[in-house]
Amino acid sequence: MRIHELTIDECLAFLAARSVGRLGVAYLGQPYVVPIHYAFDVERRCAYAFSAIGQKVEWMRSNPAVCLEVDEVGDKDHWTSVVLLGRYSEIGRTAEDAAERQHCERLLEQRDEWWLPGAARSPQHELSGVVLYRIEADRLTGRRASRVAAQ
Amino acid sequence: MRIHELTIDECLAFLAARSVGRLGVAYLGQPYVVPIHYAFDVERRCAYAFSAIGQKVEWMRSNPAVCLEVDEVGDKDHWTSVVLLGRYSEIGRTAEDAAERQHCERLLEQRDEWWLPGAARSPQHELSGVVLYRIEADRLTGRRASRVAAQ
Repeated sequence: MRIHELTIDECLAFLAARSVGRLGVAYLGQPYVVPIHYAFDVERRCAYAFSAIGQKVEWMRSNPAVCLEVDEVGDKDHWTSVVLLGRYSEIGRTAEDAAERQHCERLLEQRDEWWLPGAARSPQHELSGVVLYRIEADRLTGRRASRVAAQ
Repeated sequence: MRIHELTIDECLAFLAARSVGRLGVAYLGQPYVVPIHYAFDVERRCAYAFSAIGQKVEWMRSNPAVCLEVDEVGDKDHWTSVVLLGRYSEIGRTAEDAAERQHCERLLEQRDEWWLPGAARSPQHELSGVVLYRIEADRLTGRRASRVAAQ
């Protein structure tokens, strides 16, 4: 088996081609991991997602340093894992956020229709306890294992 | 869609039936997530795994509070996620650890043969930079989404 590091462009392409990842958050030294659906914007190096307000969102509001890990795990000889370390912030309903909100909603809608529930699309969605957020990448790393063909 | 909480027994059974999870670690407030293979001991409520010594192990040595997340994600209506919050510790080569080491190696071997590489089985494995470790569960939670059948 050979493990090689992915380039930044390979990491970006891998993230953009997928929509399920695991989000790591931490509060007072305790990490917590949950699966999320996301949409990735290669140009902005930014993942978009939404969430009901709960422990995950409360923790990210307290500590915006997060980790998004996206992988394909086959067997020991075939896997790829990309790790994005980045910062959490919420996309509000202010005029300043309007363009990005539209952009983000378009991206999420391109994914899977089911992915953006009615609650997130409603103008009242904050009231319904759903937030849209972005994770901006500070650092991207990726590794891929592949089989070395027998000679 | 209906989301329901899993019982502790359901969480344990889910973890025991699988061998790939995502491990969350944190250092100085920065979470980090990596996919791992593990073997789970229901009776001890303990996950066993091995790792090359690197950032993940260094972070867990500094901060043993970790999170193991194991899931099956289908679509928005069908997914299960179990989260184990627990403590990392290493299984050494002392007489005290001998019985658990044997137990742990047996469990790992029952999984997939490829799962325990030669390096981990060798008496010199510490010298080769591989550690065996356990994650003891402090808290287990699980949620499952299922479709409510149309009437």
